[in-house]
Amino acid sequence: MSKLLSAIGILKQTFDEYAGTDGDKTTLSKKEIAAMLKKELPGAGGDKKEEVDEFFKMLDEDGDGVVNFNEYIIFVATLALLLTGGKV
Amino acid sequence: MSKLLSAIGILKQTFDEYAGTDGDKTTLSKKEIAAMLKKELPGAGGDKKEEVDEFFKMLDEDGDGVVNFNEYIIFVATLALLLTGGKV
Repeated sequence: MSKLLSAIGILKQTFDEYAGTDGDKTTLSKKEIAAMLKKELPGAGGDKKEEVDEFFKMLDEDGDGVVNFNEYIIFVATLALLLTGGKV
Repeated sequence: MSKLLSAIGILKQTFDEYAGTDGDKTTLSKKEIAAMLKKELPGAGGDKKEEVDEFFKMLDEDGDGVVNFNEYIIFVATLALLLTGGKV
């Protein structure tokens, strides 16, 4: 498989892993976001409630109380730009 | 390394590999986009000039004749949504 497709596959697997923990398997709850932050982005504040709340509000663009795959991909794209010095 | 960060790393490596082929090492020329399409997305039309032209025009959002990392990440995010049935 191409590198591009394998990276996209990993992004989807990662989303599914955390989204599948509780409730709706196709969206990330706040609890699932906190778990993802803690494990996938150590040091990014996954253990502080205020930071998780703020982070979650930023991701949940349509304000429906969960983060869907679209919102997750926008987050990943922004993160990629932040980490590589692209314009956000 | 976390799965999320490794996927982002692969996306950056893939961009750098193709962007580094000719001219400006930080942007993708049309020739580099054609090579990326052919290898990373077999069957997506990397060998037909019209399709590469159309594809390139779609990616080159600011119309400066090259695809920078921002434009590439937007493409990857759109591709991820297309491949996983998310809303584009």
